[in-house]
Amino acid sequence: MALIVQKFGGTSVGTLERIGRAAERVAATARAGHRVVVVVSAMAGETNRLLKLAHDIAEVPDLAEVDVLIATGEQASAAMMAMQLIARGHPARSFLGHQIAIHTNSSYGRAWIESIDREPVLAALDRGEIVIVAGFQGIDAANRTTTLGRGGSDTTAVALAAALGADYCDIFTDVDGVYTSDPNVVPDARRTPHLTHEEMLEMASLGAKVLAERSVEYAMRYNVSVRVLHAFQDGEGTLVDGREDEMEQRTVTAVTCQRDQAKIAFRGVPDRPGIAASIFAPLSEAGVVVDMIVQNVSEHGLTDLTFTVPRVDLKRLLPAIEDVARGVQARQVDHDPTIAKVSVIGVGMRTHAGVAARMFQALSAVGVNMQMISTSEIKISCVIEDKFSELAVRVLHDAFELGKKKAPSPRGKASAAKKKTAPRKRARA
Amino acid sequence: MALIVQKFGGTSVGTLERIGRAAERVAATARAGHRVVVVVSAMAGETNRLLKLAHDIAEVPDLAEVDVLIATGEQASAAMMAMQLIARGHPARSFLGHQIAIHTNSSYGRAWIESIDREPVLAALDRGEIVIVAGFQGIDAANRTTTLGRGGSDTTAVALAAALGADYCDIFTDVDGVYTSDPNVVPDARRTPHLTHEEMLEMASLGAKVLAERSVEYAMRYNVSVRVLHAFQDGEGTLVDGREDEMEQRTVTAVTCQRDQAKIAFRGVPDRPGIAASIFAPLSEAGVVVDMIVQNVSEHGLTDLTFTVPRVDLKRLLPAIEDVARGVQARQVDHDPTIAKVSVIGVGMRTHAGVAARMFQALSAVGVNMQMISTSEIKISCVIEDKFSELAVRVLHDAFELGKKKAPSPRGKASAAKKKTAPRKRARA
Repeated sequence: MALIVQKFGGTSVGTLERIGRAAERVAATARAGHRVVVVVSAMAGETNRLLKLAHDIAEVPDLAEVDVLIATGEQASAAMMAMQLIARGHPARSFLGHQIAIHTNSSYGRAWIESIDREPVLAALDRGEIVIVAGFQGIDAANRTTTLGRGGSDTTAVALAAALGADYCDIFTDVDGVYTSDPNVVPDARRTPHLTHEEMLEMASLGAKVLAERSVEYAMRYNVSVRVLHAFQDGEGTLVDGREDEMEQRTVTAVTCQRDQAKIAFRGVPDRPGIAASIFAPLSEAGVVVDMIVQNVSEHGLTDLTFTVPRVDLKRLLPAIEDVARGVQARQVDHDPTIAKVSVIGVGMRTHAGVAARMFQALSAVGVNMQMISTSEIKISCVIEDKFSELAVRVLHDAFELGKKKAPSPRGKASAAKKKTAPRKRARA
Repeated sequence: MALIVQKFGGTSVGTLERIGRAAERVAATARAGHRVVVVVSAMAGETNRLLKLAHDIAEVPDLAEVDVLIATGEQASAAMMAMQLIARGHPARSFLGHQIAIHTNSSYGRAWIESIDREPVLAALDRGEIVIVAGFQGIDAANRTTTLGRGGSDTTAVALAAALGADYCDIFTDVDGVYTSDPNVVPDARRTPHLTHEEMLEMASLGAKVLAERSVEYAMRYNVSVRVLHAFQDGEGTLVDGREDEMEQRTVTAVTCQRDQAKIAFRGVPDRPGIAASIFAPLSEAGVVVDMIVQNVSEHGLTDLTFTVPRVDLKRLLPAIEDVARGVQARQVDHDPTIAKVSVIGVGMRTHAGVAARMFQALSAVGVNMQMISTSEIKISCVIEDKFSELAVRVLHDAFELGKKKAPSPRGKASAAKKKTAPRKRARA
């Protein structure tokens, strides 16, 4: 008998009928003898509907009250899921954030979970109940409602799994696992049966949408085994855990693309100690998450400092950026919102040389110029012109042989396939 | 500087624009130097929308989870009201049932408030904040969400006013006060400037919809001064308090009509001790609120026992009623869903004789037969055929001279006025 946390996203609880089907799935797990804790998101579209109300009230509505408003979405889903289970004869009970003391910090709209009181959950499980927890919400030290930001229900699920010592945290979604790349861009992208936490974390932070980044951070920190599964289809899905499979010879596991960033370049900045801090401290104070930072070698005592920020923040930031540029005596400031970041990810990189060379070669072979490069132990990211992003993802997916085994027979949708395979041919040329 | 609780009903917060206007009203009270606690209902229609979801899931959805679901309506309103006030520059903060420990019993869907923790509210007021409380909701001893039943936000407001020792509890609604009768039935019904708690309680329990019955019970028990006011029009409204005005010579204050009852008559029941208990204990166990009970004098050791129940419960109850009838050896059981109960109410009745006679005379003058009669210190109720209910209300309103001073000039809408005044003419005949 296992203890399993099962999380259903907004699409999987988007209608009463779907909540019913999700309840069937939960009930089947319970009938198999497992103890089940369910975490639910708001019905698809509900959070956006509520956010629109808030923004119709004020351009910048009070953040704490926005959380009170949008937390209703998951509350409603939790109640309806409990009703569905009870109507099917399974004892069940919903819990809201305050009822199991999901304590967070006070960053309304993007709070971090600090602790969870597992006792009420364990007591309910001991009574034979299926436990339903409203995702996405918590309370802060002042007992005010908080929410965890986009994808917050994933985080609730993983944090609960950690607090309960669950065997698995199942994330039910509308895809059947994590893919080697976005199947909309790369037609022969494959489901990967296994990923390490680190790989999944890089993928989540680099544009893969299937799991929220924070939830993977929690999973890694507390070593939670996460399974990404299709809500309404059977299948193995993708297991994400801490195990590095020695047998997996693959150096690169996935190719991702992030298209919501903008690039800012400070050119001709006097190269003296503390200059980076003078630039990034004000941005940090403005609440902006700076992503890639690249500083070139100094020439004539001057250096170029380039970084990326979320594209949505660019306009708002420009006045502050101009101020900072004057403060640090930059010769020039450029900004460019039409960039994309393509990345290759894989724990195998650690032990295999030549991944970077292969990546750069593949991109240059199709004429894609790399504007910035940034590496970590298990990923390499390049900033390129946005218009090349799909091409770049496809050539990289091919260059690292991530695709399905090619069938020799002719494929359907010939013209579309032809158009899409064209870049691959060029990549191999 | 007064402490005022201001409650806005579903219609008054039915759109973002109306929430904004309600916020203006609250802000004006705060600007006048008062400390304000606002209680809000769900937006008009929201509770019914949520209840429909619950009943689409199951014919009899789990009551506790229904409360979790429908409590979201007031939560959303509270957040939006707080945002509206903050957007207008007024510090404000919302509180949910659990945040000010509105402890109730565990009767989900119709819970009773047992206690409120006023400290968080007072602390927020001391910080200069306008406090917004989500009406209708509480928590029980197991820390589960409860709701107070229809009109529950009125109860929240009055209970808060009592707990805080507020100077007034203002109930903002879509009428400008409490009327001598339903203006839709009686065109010359008048707003009453003052009612005692007892009068208001009888009116609420006898069909007047402006205030929920339970809220008036709380107001009477804790001597809360309640003002019924129009949300978006200036005016004195109706003050409901414990003061019996010696100067008010009026014997009857209002005429009400209740049309949601059904009559059940047990005929030829052996008249022995305990017979009433044998009849009503099973009904009570079925959760049915029996309203009027009339037992006639015994004849040949047999008696007739007649009572009314909510019309919606009649069908469900019939099998149990037939069982009970066999058990007590009743000769015959009749039931009639086409009844109405008209009542005249007024504290002045206590000291004025002849009210009953005047009532019965007025009804018989227009040929309305009384099937049951029930009296209390300050009201007289008659069960009549439902089809006579509007006629009965009009003749009683006239008989006790509750109408506006008649203008001698001809009135507009001649034919309608003529049709409606016809019964009055007969009543005076």
